Amino acid sequence: MRVGIIGTGNVGRTLAGKLVSLGHEVTLGSRSKENAAALAWAEQAGPYGHSGTFAEAAAFGELVINATSGVVAVQALRLAGAEPLAGKVLIDVSNPLVFSPLGEVSLEPVNTDSVGEQIQREFPEARVVKALNTVNSEVMVDPGRVPGEHNLFVAGNDPEAKADVVALLAEFGWPQGSVLDLGDITAARSLEMLMPFWLKLMGHFGHADFNYSIRSAG
Amino acid sequence: MRVGIIGTGNVGRTLAGKLVSLGHEVTLGSRSKENAAALAWAEQAGPYGHSGTFAEAAAFGELVINATSGVVAVQALRLAGAEPLAGKVLIDVSNPLVFSPLGEVSLEPVNTDSVGEQIQREFPEARVVKALNTVNSEVMVDPGRVPGEHNLFVAGNDPEAKADVVALLAEFGWPQGSVLDLGDITAARSLEMLMPFWLKLMGHFGHADFNYSIRSAG
Repeated sequence: MRVGIIGTGNVGRTLAGKLVSLGHEVTLGSRSKENAAALAWAEQAGPYGHSGTFAEAAAFGELVINATSGVVAVQALRLAGAEPLAGKVLIDVSNPLVFSPLGEVSLEPVNTDSVGEQIQREFPEARVVKALNTVNSEVMVDPGRVPGEHNLFVAGNDPEAKADVVALLAEFGWPQGSVLDLGDITAARSLEMLMPFWLKLMGHFGHADFNYSIRSAG
Repeated sequence: MRVGIIGTGNVGRTLAGKLVSLGHEVTLGSRSKENAAALAWAEQAGPYGHSGTFAEAAAFGELVINATSGVVAVQALRLAGAEPLAGKVLIDVSNPLVFSPLGEVSLEPVNTDSVGEQIQREFPEARVVKALNTVNSEVMVDPGRVPGEHNLFVAGNDPEAKADVVALLAEFGWPQGSVLDLGDITAARSLEMLMPFWLKLMGHFGHADFNYSIRSAG
């Protein structure tokens, strides 16, 4: 499959590397064609890894992943353009973290809105699925870093799009039953609002190789 | 131990019943002395269960539990009064849920503040510990309703107060290693912000007998 990734940070490059290793073809998209991180990544990725602009990555992908920060996600996707996103599954892995001068972390949007919903409103023809924003990038593509059974979550308005994402997550190593469907895209709020808890747990453990296992009766 | 419980709703009555069954003496406090729920609870609770005002419950308890809704918690505790809370462990189990006319649920405060912090600011002499707000009331006092190992969390500024709460949770059936300390009272934000996720999971499972098990490497 051809995948376009919007964003060249740690999350974007980790997902890009995993996808290429699985035999997919990836364009890692950045704001400018001369982005050093994207060029360096493509250089070492082999023939199935390319770099390009946001618009080139979006046009390239049969599936598109937003891996920018949540606070700039809509702006970045506007640069990609609505036309190349129309009809495609668009996985939003972002969290809208805002860092205060005092080191406090908060979310914006939060509570009554989410980045997932902002993206779906801005690009109504895209089939937005919120996923993967609840774990560290290394765990995203290697769930075995965390022992035992643990879970991911998807939220989105299009059931077939969610099924496509669950299938891709299975390629990443996530067993099919491990991905819980929390409903339509408004559930992205609840997934983004896990971030403060995740940060406190990272402080507790001193590392990011952890995840949530949801235990349920019956 | 003598425990004062502020709030006569389902959570307050469930905690009160469990505490009495463990041999503690409880005053269930309500806004007015003639609260039907509190009177009925005390009637069936036997000699170790009493009803009274918020102020009477706070004065009675060596330990006090806020079991009101988070949106009215500070107001209810003002009626209890600062003096009877001074120096005592005050467990805040509340969530500040706001229900819109359209059935949407949000939190207030959220993100940059929490009920736990509001209470600690308003009653600086109280030793506030956020705990138990992450599970259904029945699971609070009977963790075996959920299979396997799963976790609770505490947040507060006073390490000895948190240790007292962990010891009480052990009486409720929570193994000591199952309660993770997430830090000072500002971590109450992260615990209260789990509520939207909890509600989506309840929708997914169709019941409330579930909980988070945190899986960590190393």
